Amino acid sequence: MTDDDKCIDQLVIDSIRMLAVEAIEKANSGHPGLPLGLSPAAYILWKQFLRHNPRNPNWMNRDRFVFSAGHGSAMLYALLHIFGYDVSLDDLKNFRQWQSRTPGHPEYGMTPGVEATAGPLGQGFAMGVGMAMAERFLAQIFNKQDMQIVDHYTYGIVSDGDLMEGISYEAASIAGYHKLGKLIYLYDDNDISIDGSTDLTFSEDVQKRFEALHWHVVNVADGNNLDAMAKAIKEAQSVKDQPSLIIIKTHIGFGSPKQDHESSHGAPLGSDALAKTKEFYSWPQDKSFYVPDSVYDYMKKNLNTMNQFEEEWNGLFRKYSASYKADAQKFTDAKNNVLPDGWDKGLKAFDPAKGQATRDASGTVMNQLAEFIPNIIGGSADLASSVKTILKSYPVFNASGTTAGRNIHFGIREHAMGSITNGLALHGGVIPYASTFFVFSDYMRPSLRMAAIMKVHSIFVFSHDSIGVGEDGPTHQPIEHLMSLRAIPGLTVLRPADANETLFAWKYAVSSKKPVVLILTRQKLPVMPVGMVTEDGFRRGAYILDDCAGTPDIIMISSGSEVQHIVEAKKIMAKNNVKVRLVSMPSWELFEHQPAEYKATVLPPKVSKRLAIEAGTSLGWQKWVGDQGIVIGIDHFGASAPGDLLMEKFGFTAQSVVEKAQCLLNK
Amino acid sequence: MTDDDKCIDQLVIDSIRMLAVEAIEKANSGHPGLPLGLSPAAYILWKQFLRHNPRNPNWMNRDRFVFSAGHGSAMLYALLHIFGYDVSLDDLKNFRQWQSRTPGHPEYGMTPGVEATAGPLGQGFAMGVGMAMAERFLAQIFNKQDMQIVDHYTYGIVSDGDLMEGISYEAASIAGYHKLGKLIYLYDDNDISIDGSTDLTFSEDVQKRFEALHWHVVNVADGNNLDAMAKAIKEAQSVKDQPSLIIIKTHIGFGSPKQDHESSHGAPLGSDALAKTKEFYSWPQDKSFYVPDSVYDYMKKNLNTMNQFEEEWNGLFRKYSASYKADAQKFTDAKNNVLPDGWDKGLKAFDPAKGQATRDASGTVMNQLAEFIPNIIGGSADLASSVKTILKSYPVFNASGTTAGRNIHFGIREHAMGSITNGLALHGGVIPYASTFFVFSDYMRPSLRMAAIMKVHSIFVFSHDSIGVGEDGPTHQPIEHLMSLRAIPGLTVLRPADANETLFAWKYAVSSKKPVVLILTRQKLPVMPVGMVTEDGFRRGAYILDDCAGTPDIIMISSGSEVQHIVEAKKIMAKNNVKVRLVSMPSWELFEHQPAEYKATVLPPKVSKRLAIEAGTSLGWQKWVGDQGIVIGIDHFGASAPGDLLMEKFGFTAQSVVEKAQCLLNK
Repeated sequence: MTDDDKCIDQLVIDSIRMLAVEAIEKANSGHPGLPLGLSPAAYILWKQFLRHNPRNPNWMNRDRFVFSAGHGSAMLYALLHIFGYDVSLDDLKNFRQWQSRTPGHPEYGMTPGVEATAGPLGQGFAMGVGMAMAERFLAQIFNKQDMQIVDHYTYGIVSDGDLMEGISYEAASIAGYHKLGKLIYLYDDNDISIDGSTDLTFSEDVQKRFEALHWHVVNVADGNNLDAMAKAIKEAQSVKDQPSLIIIKTHIGFGSPKQDHESSHGAPLGSDALAKTKEFYSWPQDKSFYVPDSVYDYMKKNLNTMNQFEEEWNGLFRKYSASYKADAQKFTDAKNNVLPDGWDKGLKAFDPAKGQATRDASGTVMNQLAEFIPNIIGGSADLASSVKTILKSYPVFNASGTTAGRNIHFGIREHAMGSITNGLALHGGVIPYASTFFVFSDYMRPSLRMAAIMKVHSIFVFSHDSIGVGEDGPTHQPIEHLMSLRAIPGLTVLRPADANETLFAWKYAVSSKKPVVLILTRQKLPVMPVGMVTEDGFRRGAYILDDCAGTPDIIMISSGSEVQHIVEAKKIMAKNNVKVRLVSMPSWELFEHQPAEYKATVLPPKVSKRLAIEAGTSLGWQKWVGDQGIVIGIDHFGASAPGDLLMEKFGFTAQSVVEKAQCLLNK
Repeated sequence: MTDDDKCIDQLVIDSIRMLAVEAIEKANSGHPGLPLGLSPAAYILWKQFLRHNPRNPNWMNRDRFVFSAGHGSAMLYALLHIFGYDVSLDDLKNFRQWQSRTPGHPEYGMTPGVEATAGPLGQGFAMGVGMAMAERFLAQIFNKQDMQIVDHYTYGIVSDGDLMEGISYEAASIAGYHKLGKLIYLYDDNDISIDGSTDLTFSEDVQKRFEALHWHVVNVADGNNLDAMAKAIKEAQSVKDQPSLIIIKTHIGFGSPKQDHESSHGAPLGSDALAKTKEFYSWPQDKSFYVPDSVYDYMKKNLNTMNQFEEEWNGLFRKYSASYKADAQKFTDAKNNVLPDGWDKGLKAFDPAKGQATRDASGTVMNQLAEFIPNIIGGSADLASSVKTILKSYPVFNASGTTAGRNIHFGIREHAMGSITNGLALHGGVIPYASTFFVFSDYMRPSLRMAAIMKVHSIFVFSHDSIGVGEDGPTHQPIEHLMSLRAIPGLTVLRPADANETLFAWKYAVSSKKPVVLILTRQKLPVMPVGMVTEDGFRRGAYILDDCAGTPDIIMISSGSEVQHIVEAKKIMAKNNVKVRLVSMPSWELFEHQPAEYKATVLPPKVSKRLAIEAGTSLGWQKWVGDQGIVIGIDHFGASAPGDLLMEKFGFTAQSVVEKAQCLLNK
């Protein structure tokens, strides 16, 4: 590097710093501390190491960059602008404003070059691990000895806050176990968090902690020393069998009067301090959002270099396509999240003669799908054998570098599992799933929300979905979980009523391209014939499972394991000539999106006697049963006893349905 | 220890093992692996170290014992039986059965001697940290140089699963920071989890990891070596300024044909394997639930020793009471969770002239309460300055051993914070609170559920409760959170409408003896005069805030920051002579517990035109507005922009209420 380069590098870095703090100042809201402290590190990483193409942010083999410390978004937007992404000065001037492309925290899908939504701490850390796992998996599948079409790093920036969150420990433990050598995180070690010095609560030996998890750790004593940081990143790259953490000592709010103080973390500098900061950086006081022309010129050249990375790769992929036509097609399909032709041809309807738990049906369907969809990959938080999510014909995800393992042992780390799954989906090329007991969805709730915010194609499989769990007792029995997930915007929750609805659920899940949750039983359920359960009905969220002649006296609505009880209750009530319509409602979200006419066909307003039964909280069901309706739910915790007995004790039986319905009809 | 002692010790241990596996066999459900492997360690801890009194499980200065690996409950029940707690052989025979006292996982409040509900992994680990913090805090307050009335250890048993969960990392980091020397955990290092060997996913260097967090670590190579374990516990006790982890190598399912295999973890041995296990332990095949008389005799003597611990302490406390009468009374009040006389005399109603955010009002009230209630202690996950939960006149919780700090810096570790708070409450003697932004309640949701299951007096304070958060954007804006917490049975959620309702909320929270959640605004709200808002109304969950003459044309219902809009709307609509009743509904749970007559007074069935407005998901509100009603809610994620603007864009204004109400009235 020449002295000229160094001089211009410094100018670029200071431009990034100034753009960030001015955006924050104009918005009168934001976090200037991180951009001032960390811009040199971010710049050197992007300039010297990151292989990406600002002209095509979606280039498949780009290095991924996860900005876990999302509160420093102004720096990210400044970087994107300076490096030539489609982020303008006007975008920066609209930082944190209504309908701008530069929201308060980075949002995936909103700003070109933003690889992941970030803000809730620790999430980015874990998503990056997922991206690195996707890279390895796809490399194992598609790379040939002479052609490495999947070959990139995953970089990230993490903060004190990220490291304090338990999810970062979980994710780091997994990354270390899997020897993810192409995962490199820069840790912004600035000793300050919102309430003050990290000394207030964070005394651990971070290096030792990460070494205990089998990471390679490099220290950089001065976050303004570009050479030292470049050397550290090179060292990290050279360690192939361990993820790396580069601990960079930085000064929060560097160069501002608030340097090294928590007051620089989360509020604009204010005009006086901004003026002093400009003075420190010899920046013109009379200009705002100023970038020297020399900076733009210099970065324009860089843009061409960046573009070449993709050009080269395109050349490689053309050769690959010539030599390995089928694989190239598979790769393109995977990249575009297009299911291969005939993806559903292995699927078979279930025989009504044999009852089975929906978790078992799910396991069968998953294995049928995995055979025809080569990029389904996932696992469980140490409950694969219980949730039945093992892809039996395939190996375990591994570090060996040759065979592509499709079963991930996440360990008892639900939260990291959820966000790693989101990271797998964000990377693209794979359809990821995660599984555990439904009650433990609470442990990964922030990840479920992130999946919904980002609209990524993560599939979550939760079994043991009610008091039907039985002996394990209240800590293991979901009550509020179903409704709590339905309350998350953009998450599609499916609770199939039997094996065949489970088949429909999986078909929907793999083809939907958005986050889907499957809720499954531990216990056996009767299997209904296809025709009674229908795929079209299922995909509409609710449908008439069994009808009566003429206007029904009563409509009974249910989901999952309780559908069997309304079916049975109808048979009993038929003896008294009660006209009963049965509605299976596997998904509120899908039903809500139906046209009003369809909804009125299933639930005609004139039929006000309605009964709903579901082994979860009754909260919310009034929407479907109305003022005249009845809900059989459970609004208290469960108990430890055999599941069948609990169902009986708590009123989830056909008899109970009959009694309550009769009561309603007599009103 | 004599050879005879050793011989009888072994007999007791084997009795515990056999009782546990037989209880599991009879229940046909449970986890025999842990009891077979870990009974020696548990026994030696209880027999030689644990200072408790089975005749009085609530003795205040007892050592606490947290069994984080709750799936091994059968061992705990066997221990309780053998050590003389009120757990009978019949109780063991009813393991995991309907209405038994020996549920599948230990449940606090159900079985004498069970200190905490456990099962969801990692929870016990963090709750134990809370107990140790409570001990230190109370010791700092009450102990005198010559009289240490608070002086006990907190022990725990933790498993591979506990250590994999992120919450255990968070809690361990806090415990290490605070040098909790009286916290000693035995780690059941058996190398097996449900899906197989821990080698599948758990390769970390546990010793190094804990040393990095400033724990003292001791290794025991053989979990059957009683002397080695006793020595290790003694060593741990001798280290006063670090928590200790004793890593004990055990064999899951020891002595059974399934030893060292995951099949012994979570299913009964089966009759054949049970017979072989009995053979291994030379246990009579023809007897079930057999305990040799010599074991009972030996443990009876132990019971007297245990009893003496409390006797001695009672003597000490009598002396203490004589010398320090006021402190003794304070201690007794704290122990019984009785608020001191005049606890509410510092409280002042807020002046309607000055608007303020409910988080600010909350901060004021907390500080007023803290002055008169000396055992309020708590803190925030690095957001104390934002949630306004700092107790300003008091120091920070610390390890110095002399001054009692009441402000805990939890760091950015919400999950551990939640469960440590539950641990503080379980210990007793303190009224703990935890605080963060509402959106991050997701990170601690499992702890919130545990608080509700255990019915402990934990207070959770969540601010920044809606899109009112503004610029930070969708990742920081709660949408589904309010309804998702209302869905948790037994949790009382309070969303006050202004500063004065916030005052009522805190009065309720400190005196309720059950888990309470306060939901507060970031943004300023008008303050309503007391009289319009009433404490009696607040405590009923919903009440008439402002009424009209005669039957209302419409009832408008709201909570929190949206109440201002119905108040304003009513004024506008008065010009058209519309008769409007306003209902403030700060708590669904409290309102649901009111008599039907009261409910009908507030929401008369004959008034079917109802409008509800709340800046959260609309799901669930149909319950209160009915078929003819309208809900103004938000069923999508928020956005990044100034909070006021978002409220306007998304329809949370008086004008929007007026328009929607008019529409409803015209129907």
